[in-house]
Amino acid sequence: MSGAHAPSMEAALEMNRRWLDQAASIGAASLVVITGGLPRGETDLFAVRERALESSHRLIEPARAAGVRLAFEPLHPMVCGGRSVISRLADAPDFLDALNADDVFGLAVDSYAVWWDLDLAAALQRAGPRLLHFHVSDWPRDTDNIRFDRGMPGDGVIDNRKLRQWMENAGFKGPVEVEIFSQKNWWRRDPDDVVRTILDRCAKFL
Amino acid sequence: MSGAHAPSMEAALEMNRRWLDQAASIGAASLVVITGGLPRGETDLFAVRERALESSHRLIEPARAAGVRLAFEPLHPMVCGGRSVISRLADAPDFLDALNADDVFGLAVDSYAVWWDLDLAAALQRAGPRLLHFHVSDWPRDTDNIRFDRGMPGDGVIDNRKLRQWMENAGFKGPVEVEIFSQKNWWRRDPDDVVRTILDRCAKFL
Repeated sequence: MSGAHAPSMEAALEMNRRWLDQAASIGAASLVVITGGLPRGETDLFAVRERALESSHRLIEPARAAGVRLAFEPLHPMVCGGRSVISRLADAPDFLDALNADDVFGLAVDSYAVWWDLDLAAALQRAGPRLLHFHVSDWPRDTDNIRFDRGMPGDGVIDNRKLRQWMENAGFKGPVEVEIFSQKNWWRRDPDDVVRTILDRCAKFL
Repeated sequence: MSGAHAPSMEAALEMNRRWLDQAASIGAASLVVITGGLPRGETDLFAVRERALESSHRLIEPARAAGVRLAFEPLHPMVCGGRSVISRLADAPDFLDALNADDVFGLAVDSYAVWWDLDLAAALQRAGPRLLHFHVSDWPRDTDNIRFDRGMPGDGVIDNRKLRQWMENAGFKGPVEVEIFSQKNWWRRDPDDVVRTILDRCAKFL
């Protein structure tokens, strides 16, 4: 697990242990994690995935001790290089099977990351009880920004309602988490307005 | 088929017929095409895919008449909204099977669009004789631009040599086409320098 700065495996493990403790201290049931992308100069996606598996193994005991689950979030393929070697939801089961610790590991699904995938419904069905989080936002059709141009549900090309139905058909009973990274628009607005808009859009589009 | 401005199906067909004639007039064996993305306000990926199939059907006779093949290029999922509803190479066979005209249709593979896909080797093997074009460039690990920040082979996270081997293992015998969309860097350099760099990098990384 690592962030944009690709810390060493030891540093990343230490960071995740700290986050697990923080999560436990506020009573959080789970922590969303990402695998990290390819270290600079590395081009072997499969080798990086193996290393992500190794470091994830080493989080099993700390997570059990903290009583906090770890939810892997597949990220959009456009950030595979720098942030996550799990891109499609369909790529997650093999990873989780190899970890063989379903009491600890689960999945976070973000509509922004997975909406384009034609096999999504089947992947959600297969994920079933592993589904721990559901994040929504919208994809502006002609966006030019790779991380911080998310739209409110209803403003883009994602059918969030259908995705929610698929999540629920797969057995998910948790809340919908609205996650709008939006440097140029929503982050600049009055927070009360933003929250009102979220409630309105969720009623209409989810 | 459509471009960024999402013309009507009739306009898109007319445009593609014109391109077929132009391709024939210069003796080109094939024309690379994309399906177009989701029209503004549309969120049903599967319906759009059906419509892309319909319009593709209508290009079979014009392509046969022109003696030019049509190579569908799966584009990166980050441009699924605006440019292509075929994202993964693995999504292409069903589409081509439905068209049932392998004398006309084939595939163009661009390493920039498909490198992140864990199932790529299998998808290339399955594509086999349908592989008509191979485009290469590199993905800068921490790119922030969705279309015009491609790197030279060797500057990013793509193992172009491995992809080329997979292409050739699948039976591809065509040339490697280097395609560097690079607004901030390579497009601003002296063209002779760019060509020399391409030759150097192809020798080292392909």
